Amino acid sequence: MNKNELLALLQPDIEQINETMHSEISQCGNALLQQILEYALFNGGKRIRPILTVLSARLCAFSRMPEGLAEEDELKPPVNLYLLAAIFEFLHGASLLHDDVIDNAGKRRGRPSANSVWDNTQVILAGDFLHARALTIAGTVGDQHTLSLIGHATAAMIQAEFLQMQTVQERNLSEKNYFSVLRGKTGCLISAACEVGAYFAQSGDAHQKALRSYGDALGLAFQVVDDLLDYQGDPGKTGKAVGNDFVEGKMTLPLIHALQNCDRKEFDRIMGLLKENPSARAGQIGEVYAFIEQYGGFDYARQGAETLVEAANEALAVFPDCQSRKILTGLANYVLTRQK
Amino acid sequence: MNKNELLALLQPDIEQINETMHSEISQCGNALLQQILEYALFNGGKRIRPILTVLSARLCAFSRMPEGLAEEDELKPPVNLYLLAAIFEFLHGASLLHDDVIDNAGKRRGRPSANSVWDNTQVILAGDFLHARALTIAGTVGDQHTLSLIGHATAAMIQAEFLQMQTVQERNLSEKNYFSVLRGKTGCLISAACEVGAYFAQSGDAHQKALRSYGDALGLAFQVVDDLLDYQGDPGKTGKAVGNDFVEGKMTLPLIHALQNCDRKEFDRIMGLLKENPSARAGQIGEVYAFIEQYGGFDYARQGAETLVEAANEALAVFPDCQSRKILTGLANYVLTRQK
Repeated sequence: MNKNELLALLQPDIEQINETMHSEISQCGNALLQQILEYALFNGGKRIRPILTVLSARLCAFSRMPEGLAEEDELKPPVNLYLLAAIFEFLHGASLLHDDVIDNAGKRRGRPSANSVWDNTQVILAGDFLHARALTIAGTVGDQHTLSLIGHATAAMIQAEFLQMQTVQERNLSEKNYFSVLRGKTGCLISAACEVGAYFAQSGDAHQKALRSYGDALGLAFQVVDDLLDYQGDPGKTGKAVGNDFVEGKMTLPLIHALQNCDRKEFDRIMGLLKENPSARAGQIGEVYAFIEQYGGFDYARQGAETLVEAANEALAVFPDCQSRKILTGLANYVLTRQK
Repeated sequence: MNKNELLALLQPDIEQINETMHSEISQCGNALLQQILEYALFNGGKRIRPILTVLSARLCAFSRMPEGLAEEDELKPPVNLYLLAAIFEFLHGASLLHDDVIDNAGKRRGRPSANSVWDNTQVILAGDFLHARALTIAGTVGDQHTLSLIGHATAAMIQAEFLQMQTVQERNLSEKNYFSVLRGKTGCLISAACEVGAYFAQSGDAHQKALRSYGDALGLAFQVVDDLLDYQGDPGKTGKAVGNDFVEGKMTLPLIHALQNCDRKEFDRIMGLLKENPSARAGQIGEVYAFIEQYGGFDYARQGAETLVEAANEALAVFPDCQSRKILTGLANYVLTRQK
């Protein structure tokens, strides 16, 4: 299943999700707030998180049907599911709005960022609004368990931001620490998106756990590939300068692996660069790239991402081999081939 | 009941609230985050919002007791009530953290503000964490209705911030608009604090409504007095420069009243000042003060606050004349005499 086939299959759900989001935003009670939310949330995002909620629910519902009773595509999810799914886009959007203010970012997905169009005040408040609506929907359209899952994921995202700042400051080189940051920043929300879908479909513990594991591995694989693209991507496609993570002092898996396998002299040289200021590092990307390549850091990270995608797909083995499962597998495989 | 008598009566509840907050913060999962939250939330705040939740619950519970069955002070609220009460301090704290980043404030209650001690990143994230925990507690320790009340109040706070920005920009002179901003920024959260207490105590609609009305009027009165203190307070006590609202271009009740009652020439003169930049206005505070006084703006606002406090106390008439009611009345009356 290639990218275009996947997109075509997902289109009807994406449209429902977008419609639900427009409708929810239109009730925000202030014209300017509505404008900022529309701008921030409709910027070409792929709706991957809400899609995972809808597909997970459909997969669980279909798994329970007596054979031959219904065609899978006849299982139309109720409106409430799309609203619960939209929560994950709201939380993601809230964190991007706050990130852009924090980083004083000028662009987001090739367009001026919200904070370059409006004041920081308005952008921070718009993020707070999305945050509050998402959690309120979680606990009122969903229930206490749904809220608890989503509240946990939100807290984990914030804890991971703090852990990442400390990691950079301490120049912490442990893979365990690296994956803890990834899990908090991306994995938790993605696995919650899958688990909430399964829970909504009233599936049993085994199915909920399977989708949680799928989401966790998918989220980690996505981030490892992101970290690879930071060094190896085409800036024309990714929209980011090559080696940006290194310039910012972030130690990602390719670099961590190389540093753990080089000799003392090289180790000291690279760690020395990490202690300099960002502009000093910007001129050393070529050297660092060659260093990582020499010690197999890129291959190691690529293999790590492949193993995670296999784990994601294996987690789905408890489900029948149906269309929803094929799409989820297709999404996981796509992570390895994406170029932006 | 004077301020010291009130504080003495409230002390045991304040201690329980503080203990609950410490315990909740200690579970935040990151040492630095915990440090920021402790700093931001334990800065000499009076815990007025959580106190209102506890008092409202106790008043409702006592009102239902058959006469003589229990002493009021024997009605020890369950631990869960203190946790629900703490939500209001968390939401208030989250909005102060974000406000201080937005305003680039250097001080808060006479101490360096959190954003002068830590980075904006950390402070925004700490606010997000409080926000997320508050709503998660609302819907899991409380229930869907509790979450819905608190979610509504949170959204109202953000809508009111947008309304206020537009009010300043449009130089909107309507009293209705002025009170809409106050209600959103302060009234909604305070009335929710009261209503959640009543709801927790399983009181009927009439008692819930009475406490909601009390909170609404109390919150408005508090803000009107705040706006009076901005012109008439002692900077040594309030910690703010005299006329700060006018410098920022905010039109509060005393000024609105004067502008609605002056002649055309004076109107144009003051409106002209409002179109200048803040530093130009800073030199005109004396003139503006005299202008407001001449047209009775301060008296008018003072009377408005008194009427609101009367309304708050009248809303409590449905309850028996017990200690909790006396304290709530005392708190409302205190609003009129406070000097900071």
